[in-house]
Amino acid sequence: MTAASLGTAKRMAIRVAILGFGTVGSSVARILLEGPAAGELELTHVFNRNVARKRAAWVCDTVRWTENVDEVFASDADVVVELAGGLDPAGGWVRRALEAGKSVVTANKKLIAAHGIELHRLARAHGAHLFYGAAVAGGIPVIPGLQQGLAGERVERIEGILNGTCNYILSGMEAGREYAPMLAEAQARGYAEADPTEDVGGFDARAKLVILSRIALHADVPIDAVRCQAITRLTAVDFDYARLLGCTVRQVSRAELAGAGSVVAMVGPMLVPQRSPLAWSRGTENMVLIGGAYGGDVVFSGHGAGGHPTAVAVVSDLLAIAHGSGAVELPSHKASVSSDLHLRHSVRFLVKDRPGIVAGIASALARESINIDALLQKPGHSKASLPFVVTVEPCSGSALRRALAEVEQMDCLLEPPLEMEILEHE
Amino acid sequence: MTAASLGTAKRMAIRVAILGFGTVGSSVARILLEGPAAGELELTHVFNRNVARKRAAWVCDTVRWTENVDEVFASDADVVVELAGGLDPAGGWVRRALEAGKSVVTANKKLIAAHGIELHRLARAHGAHLFYGAAVAGGIPVIPGLQQGLAGERVERIEGILNGTCNYILSGMEAGREYAPMLAEAQARGYAEADPTEDVGGFDARAKLVILSRIALHADVPIDAVRCQAITRLTAVDFDYARLLGCTVRQVSRAELAGAGSVVAMVGPMLVPQRSPLAWSRGTENMVLIGGAYGGDVVFSGHGAGGHPTAVAVVSDLLAIAHGSGAVELPSHKASVSSDLHLRHSVRFLVKDRPGIVAGIASALARESINIDALLQKPGHSKASLPFVVTVEPCSGSALRRALAEVEQMDCLLEPPLEMEILEHE
Repeated sequence: MTAASLGTAKRMAIRVAILGFGTVGSSVARILLEGPAAGELELTHVFNRNVARKRAAWVCDTVRWTENVDEVFASDADVVVELAGGLDPAGGWVRRALEAGKSVVTANKKLIAAHGIELHRLARAHGAHLFYGAAVAGGIPVIPGLQQGLAGERVERIEGILNGTCNYILSGMEAGREYAPMLAEAQARGYAEADPTEDVGGFDARAKLVILSRIALHADVPIDAVRCQAITRLTAVDFDYARLLGCTVRQVSRAELAGAGSVVAMVGPMLVPQRSPLAWSRGTENMVLIGGAYGGDVVFSGHGAGGHPTAVAVVSDLLAIAHGSGAVELPSHKASVSSDLHLRHSVRFLVKDRPGIVAGIASALARESINIDALLQKPGHSKASLPFVVTVEPCSGSALRRALAEVEQMDCLLEPPLEMEILEHE
Repeated sequence: MTAASLGTAKRMAIRVAILGFGTVGSSVARILLEGPAAGELELTHVFNRNVARKRAAWVCDTVRWTENVDEVFASDADVVVELAGGLDPAGGWVRRALEAGKSVVTANKKLIAAHGIELHRLARAHGAHLFYGAAVAGGIPVIPGLQQGLAGERVERIEGILNGTCNYILSGMEAGREYAPMLAEAQARGYAEADPTEDVGGFDARAKLVILSRIALHADVPIDAVRCQAITRLTAVDFDYARLLGCTVRQVSRAELAGAGSVVAMVGPMLVPQRSPLAWSRGTENMVLIGGAYGGDVVFSGHGAGGHPTAVAVVSDLLAIAHGSGAVELPSHKASVSSDLHLRHSVRFLVKDRPGIVAGIASALARESINIDALLQKPGHSKASLPFVVTVEPCSGSALRRALAEVEQMDCLLEPPLEMEILEHE
């Protein structure tokens, strides 16, 4: 025996149509043509607007290029790879493909977060598969790892660095840069859109967190109920203070089971201990920590976005379909959501210094029964624009925000206080 | 709709028999009875020697306890979970189960490394499944992550911390302890056997590396051809010198494609940069880094051993069988193996100091065309027993060992030189 020792009796190639020939689409085509799947997966159609402009010379000439999406649904393609993104028209295309009995592979986190359950039902009704390994953390096999490798676990907690753009900006700020130039640099490198709101506002990460909650916590979380806090108000000073606390700052997406049918979930900048795996992620890397009742913490990390890493996830899903390897899909249940993480918090104030500020803050916190843990003030700042930090013992985020709304009335505050959760790890 | 939103039409429970009711076996039983799989997986048989002593009161009384393994093969169990370990009699049991058309889930790395290909063929011939997600890195879903999530990747390199016992000893030594007390502590805590050779000699990790090479590199590596270097000769001094080089020491299992049908693979203590993910693993943690041509590096980490983490992997495999989710098994090919990593190396000498030692070493290295990179000698050591380190530019390990065999003839050497690869990361 010299070859073919493991697996795979000879099978017919699966016919694949790609909708959307951008960065990811062309990477998928490349891997289909030259990667380990060549021979098992046959690229038959590429749909894109303005197809004449998109047509790539290196794609073999048996592939049919079209601007007419109906042609794909009427074709003999077995699987449709949807890479257009967004809810519309991508959602309609996915539905039509499934209704035509074609399996669908998609990287569309927005669509899966909003309509994944309905689309799964549609797929089952038509004997088709729906795979979306690329929708969360691109090239890192978090979804397959959860579905195939951790199905037997009782997952209690998800903590993720799910947005590479934010991580690029924040790890640059950790190295001493300010927010605006890091954002500009991310835009120049193509990591951030001209309007970066989806990324820096936390909405992109939130869609991924909703998908992970469904798979890992078996909880259907209404996406709008998950609080997002933007990273836009962070300054280099926040990283200085984080360092004093043995931490750095990351945009963390966190969801945790909190009793039957209840999940605490939010996305925003949080303080993570420098010894926590979450602090290790740099640049555009993604990272997901899964906390299980039986096996403890499992960490996945790698490149969460980009054409090639995302395409690896897409092609792996295509191979799973070719090999008849359905995902292990355990039932999920409707869950109520709170964003009220009961954790230590740090609050950064920026004030025009005068006597009585700390007393005012302390009283407002005391009225909500919140205990101050420490007061940090690094030397060298002007009294006219003085940043300092108060850390508080574990408390409900909403109680803290009520106290801070009161503090905000003080005329010495130059901007609203910036509060962040402090994640602890043993 | 309030429940069962994702997946799983009602199906019959899969009947499960466990062979071996030790730490892992009883964890598997516990998760089957109370975990997310309860209802889908029914524990029907437990086989163990001396079953009267093993019988656990918390296991429901519908379970049949037996000391007669034939009873299991003749039973209506659908899946046999083999947790006895080792080649014999476990190998015979796995074959008999597959021949009886029963699927097998096993944590037996030794068996899968040695006979996995043959057993896969046997499973296919009898329409049964063979799963072994627990055989490598216990609770970390590396095997499912590779098979389902990275099947589309062209993996070029595997670097793993695959033995928790070694990692426990080495991360203790990193903190200043010596080898012997750390080994004794590992034995006292049940992390190491009375005879620790399998672990500290690298043989346990090597079996796992062979399995990962088959799945990720699609290379069938003859296990005996993979060089193992023991961690037994390391001293606290080696960690001092590693620190000077910005590194620490870990037992690394490494395999890399080196052209068609050829793999470079070895297991042994290596210097890993403190910024490398491999340096982050502490205590009994495992970690696997997968280097891909398309998606770059992906890292998995978590608890590689222990009853509960290993049981999570076993139960996840059982759920995959229950859901008809076969693994994506790409064909593997026979590969020739060399253990000749072309990397920078560090060599630690222990000498009775006298003039001419460095000259002798330098000449021996020069005769093999090996360039010295740096010479490190920390102050404070006695001249009668002086440890120092020479680092060399990238060279073949076998050329280096030839040079060192010559150096070993010098009468000033108090013990043979200890050479380690230096792993570099961008």
